Order: sequence, then structure tokens, then C-alpha cells
Amino acid sequence: MDYYKEALRLHEEKQGKLSIVSKVSLENKDDLSIAYTPGVAKPCIEISKNPEDVYKYTSKGNMVAIVTDGSAVLGLGNIGAKASIPVMEGKAVLFKAFANVDAIPICTETQDTEEIISVVKNISPFFGGINLEDISAPRCFDIERRLQEALDIPVFHDDQHGTAIVTSAAVINALKLVKKKMKEVKIVVNGAGAAGSAIVKMLIVMGAKNILICDRQGIISKKRKGQLSQDKIRLAELTNQEARTGGLTDAIQSADIFIGVSSPKTVTYEMIKNMNKDAIVFAMSNPEPEVIPDIAFEAGARIVGTGRSDFANQINNVLAFPGIFKGALASRAKKITEPMKVAAAYAIAKAVKEGQLNENYIIPSVFQEGIADDVADAVANAWYKEAGTE
Amino acid sequence: MDYYKEALRLHEEKQGKLSIVSKVSLENKDDLSIAYTPGVAKPCIEISKNPEDVYKYTSKGNMVAIVTDGSAVLGLGNIGAKASIPVMEGKAVLFKAFANVDAIPICTETQDTEEIISVVKNISPFFGGINLEDISAPRCFDIERRLQEALDIPVFHDDQHGTAIVTSAAVINALKLVKKKMKEVKIVVNGAGAAGSAIVKMLIVMGAKNILICDRQGIISKKRKGQLSQDKIRLAELTNQEARTGGLTDAIQSADIFIGVSSPKTVTYEMIKNMNKDAIVFAMSNPEPEVIPDIAFEAGARIVGTGRSDFANQINNVLAFPGIFKGALASRAKKITEPMKVAAAYAIAKAVKEGQLNENYIIPSVFQEGIADDVADAVANAWYKEAGTE
Repeated sequence: MDYYKEALRLHEEKQGKLSIVSKVSLENKDDLSIAYTPGVAKPCIEISKNPEDVYKYTSKGNMVAIVTDGSAVLGLGNIGAKASIPVMEGKAVLFKAFANVDAIPICTETQDTEEIISVVKNISPFFGGINLEDISAPRCFDIERRLQEALDIPVFHDDQHGTAIVTSAAVINALKLVKKKMKEVKIVVNGAGAAGSAIVKMLIVMGAKNILICDRQGIISKKRKGQLSQDKIRLAELTNQEARTGGLTDAIQSADIFIGVSSPKTVTYEMIKNMNKDAIVFAMSNPEPEVIPDIAFEAGARIVGTGRSDFANQINNVLAFPGIFKGALASRAKKITEPMKVAAAYAIAKAVKEGQLNENYIIPSVFQEGIADDVADAVANAWYKEAGTE
Repeated sequence: MDYYKEALRLHEEKQGKLSIVSKVSLENKDDLSIAYTPGVAKPCIEISKNPEDVYKYTSKGNMVAIVTDGSAVLGLGNIGAKASIPVMEGKAVLFKAFANVDAIPICTETQDTEEIISVVKNISPFFGGINLEDISAPRCFDIERRLQEALDIPVFHDDQHGTAIVTSAAVINALKLVKKKMKEVKIVVNGAGAAGSAIVKMLIVMGAKNILICDRQGIISKKRKGQLSQDKIRLAELTNQEARTGGLTDAIQSADIFIGVSSPKTVTYEMIKNMNKDAIVFAMSNPEPEVIPDIAFEAGARIVGTGRSDFANQINNVLAFPGIFKGALASRAKKITEPMKVAAAYAIAKAVKEGQLNENYIIPSVFQEGIADDVADAVANAWYKEAGTE
């Protein structure tokens, strides 16, 4: 099927993918007097007396804003707010289909950090959560951190944490198969943008001790010549204890796991050949992976995953974000913490039953029944535990 | 029925009134590849090449933002963004039920004019129209004017224009019944906020020559002592050619039409007794009118309308805004002009057929079949005519 052609046809036929519907009927004067004036004044009065009642009487508790400035959309780059809408509507469709969460795009004309923060703070009263999407690094780090500090609803940059959670789930299951331990394996992450940084941080939280992360200049290292950005100084502190320098070829030598969130064809047959036995290769550049699975297998990889649905082991954010928001909204979490993300990763990993786990099935299908609910339960329980209200 | 109690029950049971749904199915990998990656990239690319295609491939063309800062909600006053949500959700429910227009609340934390303008400009890419709601005067005038100057989508403050349009429709039909002419009658408007100002301006556009408008201090007049605000200076210039001064009692003497958008019980039996023969009284303060219809009739009024559904002649914005936006969106109007508003008023007036028109039926029921479509057609045709593209 020609997905491009079909997508164009469908988007034009339907004129977009979202519709707003009423949960109440409106067929006569009584209905009107209850859903609107005069009756509607009563929930308004209750909320003005007790602001927490906004969760009781409005749609806020299940409503997510999908916020983007269109600066880093898919692999298309900075295409702006209007051109980003089909992706954001698509995201809302996934929220609904997989977790019954209501979500709506907020595509900002501005790409200024301060203005984006101001816009999101200002529109937050109606929303129970903020999903940041396709905002370019390093602004995305600042925007997420400052919004989460300012707001008492979860703020979650999916390109960072969604990717990190699903990748971590795949790592958990792959390690089970090859019988290696997180704290012992050598991991190389290629790509130090939003996704790469978040993957590194999450794997460390989960016990990884030996990680190298590379950007286009090679291994990120305290000893690297030229000035590192604030974000990369932090990454250099978290990884690469021996302060090694060099390129990706040097980094990948004797690695157990390669994780690519970079560009097509950045990894060669030779590089994979130099990895340790039972190598795990996640080549998630989209749509063209860092290395084609066939080549990786030929070079000796035992487990290969990509971002694509036409290969085995698709590492897809859709496994994470719907359930994460569902759980965070259900538990009225004020933020999405590290333990909540870790709980989500384990829930996704656990969705592959013991008898099912094999080299071509380390991560569940997005259509596997009940995944979002499993993730939601795990996330909600982690919040309760952390908030001490369990 | 106890509308307050019933509203509280319903809002809690449903947890708000709005839900976001998908217009496309999502049941297998192909669906996912068309609604989301990789297929979705194609409409994104098309829009980035030609921004007008945003109407072709996204929900923008039928999507309205209902924007409020919660500063003047119903008769409840400044209750803030969160407490305003039930009203804004109710408005969205009406948009959907009466005109199949998708609408979503944007309730801003800020009440600062500059910040509100900035927020709305910034979120505008996803929306085909902006409905301003329950923003207090005089800020609402400035916000509407400046947003309309900045944006190429319609910006419409319903408390002003929706009220003015429906009131004008009622005036048109009432004048038919009493056989008086717009250019000859003396009209008194009580209340010089958002609604009163807009009613005055619209009646003038429709031919009225003799209008007095009163605020709490009495008749607005160039000669009135004390400083008038910029908005009231403009009203004084538009009305009251003889620069009369005095109170509402003086103003209403020998008037043909009284229009109240003020406070309960501001009009007495005596005042109405002093109006001209075949007096028309629209007492639209809500929920308690300026004068109870029975008293107005006893004092000699021939036609009485209110904002309430339990009296005859309910003058209700619901007759106007759904169709107005439907027509504006359908014709891709860049703004909502005076001729479009006048066309809407005549369409509403015309919905009362000649044989039906009588003292107790000068304005159609909001549930009358086809009203929104009639209004939409009239509004779209007025835009085509004005834009010269008919």
C-alpha cells in the first residue's frame, strides 16, 4: 500500500481526523437549561468555591493538550505550526484509540521558549495534562522543566520519555534473552538529541553503568576538544567514566547494545561485527534505520529492533504514551516521575509473556489487547507509592 | 425541574460535557501507517509547501476556539478560568448540536489584555475561528479588534454581536407587528457594556436614527458631567443627537422600544406606562428581567421579550452564533462583517413565517428545524458578496 497517497486521500476526504462531541443530549428546553443556562451556573459556582472540583464537573480530568511549535516534526524538521497539525491530530487519534484519553492539538505560532511557556501556562486550566511533541532540542528540555515546575498537572515530552520508556522495555527483554545484566553490559547510544539524552538517563536509573553516547562529532567526553553545551556536559558526566574520545566506530567496539536515534546508514557491517557476542541492535532512525536488519544479522547481531512496523521488534512510542497519560490522569498525578517511567517500561516488557519471548518478539505489538491499561495501572501505582497515598 | 441540582448531577456523572473523537478508524497496522507515521508526513509536506492546504487536510476548517478569561461569566462575574469551564463546554455542546461545528474551550489563566491577545494569536494555527466569550468590558472591545486585525480567521465576541443580532431580529419582527419603521422609532437601550454597545451599533447599521443609551449614571450624553470613557464617548456620538441628559425615567418617556441588557428590576410600571402606544419591551437581564412581563403588559406594552425560556419571545444567542460560525467557516470568511451580521438578523427574523408572527411569537424557537442552516447560508452569501467572489 502507498501510505503517502492513501494518507493524502484520507486526510482530504475526512478534512482532518478530529471531531468534538457532546457527552450530553440536547433535544429540548430542559436539556438546554441543564447543559447551559441557567443550570450550568451551579457547577461554575462550586468550582469557584473549590477549584479542585474542576475535576469533578468538567472534562479536564481526561483532557490532554498536545503542544508543539512545529520545530522538529517527524524527520521533516522545522515545518511550523500549521504543517504539524496532521501529526498532532494523529497523536490525538492514538490517545483516543489506545487509552480513551481526550486530546487536542495546540500548535503555537511562536517558536520562542518564553512565549511557548507562557502560552501553555495560560491555557492549562482546561487540561489535565500536557504532552509536548516535536519541539527541537535543546529548547524542549527547558520548556518541559520550567512548565513542570510551574504547573500542577503532568508535563511530558514524548520524544524524550516515550522513546526512552519503550527502548528501555526492549532492552529489559533483550537482556533476558541473551542472559546479560543491565549493570554489566556496555551500551552505545548514537544521537544526543531529545531521545538519546532521555534514553541514557533512563537506562542509568534502571542500573546501567557503562554507557557511551555519541553525537555527530563522536563520543561525548569531558576530554573532547571544543566547547560542549550545558546539556552535553551533563551527558558527559553521566556516561563515559574513562573519558574516552573517538568516533562511533571506536565507541561501538566490544559493545553489547547499540541504540540508534540518529540518521540512516550511520552504522556499518564492520561496526556490528566488532560488537560483543549476542549483540543487541536497536536502529530506530525513521523511516530508514541506522542499519538494515538483514545486514546487522549477517554481521552477527542476535537481536535487532527498529522503529518500523514492517520489521520485527518495532520500538514504538504508541506502546507508552497513551497508557502513561491514562495512568497519570487516573491517579491525578501532578507530574510524571522517574519511578512512573520505570514502572511503565517494566509493564511494557512484561506484556511479552515468558513463552512468547524470542529474538523476533521482544516487544509487544501496539495492538496487543490491554497494553495501555497495564501501563496505566503500573504508572498510577507508582504515583500512589511515591506520593505516599497508596 | 430543579435545573441547578440536575446540572450538578449531570456534570458529575459525565465528568464534563466534551469528548474528542477520531474521524478515522485505527484497527490495524495499515490504519496506523495512514493516520500516523509514515503516511501522515505527506499532508504535512503539502501544507508546508502551501499553507492554505491546512484547510484541506486538517480539522481547522470546522474548529472553533471558545476563548475566555473567566472575567464576566454569566451573571456570576469574575470567577476565573477554571470555574468558567462548564459554560465554555456548554457553548461547545451548542455549537455541535445546532450547527455541527467543532469547538473547544480555551480558558486563559491570565486576565491581562496583552497576554490574552498573545495566547490567542499563538494558538490560532489549529483553529478556523475564534469565539470570544464572557470577557469583561471594556477589555473585550480591544481584544476583539486587535485579534481581528492580527488574524485571517473570524474573531467574534458573542456577548456583543450574538446578542445584538438576535435582538435586532426581534426588533425587525416586532416593528412589523406594530407597523412602525426602524428609522422613525425612538429606542432606549439600558446597559452600556458589551451587549448594549453592540446593539446600538447594529440598530444604527440597520437604519435606526433615534437611540438613547443609558448606563448606571443615566443617559450617555456629550453634555454629561464627569469624564466619559473612550467607548462611551463613541456611544455618545452615535446616539442622542440632541445631547439630552437625565436618568432612565427621562430617557424612556415616549420611547417606542425599550431594550434592557442591565440588571433585574431596573424598569418600573410607571416607566412603561410613559412609553408610546404599542410599546415593545425587551427585558433581557438574566435570570431576572428588568421588568416582569406581566407588569409590562399591564402598563401597556404590546410586545414583551426576555432572555428566559419560560416566557414567550426568548431572545437567545443560541439562535445566532452556531449558524454564524457555520456560515463563516463554510465560506472561509476572514472576518465577520456588519453585512454578515445584518444578514444573520434578517435570516432569524424570516424564520418566523408570516402566518405565525404574533405578539407571543416574534422570534423562532432555538429548536426550530433549519435555523442554523438558514443563518449560515445568509452569512456565507453576505461574505461572498462583500468579498466579490459570488
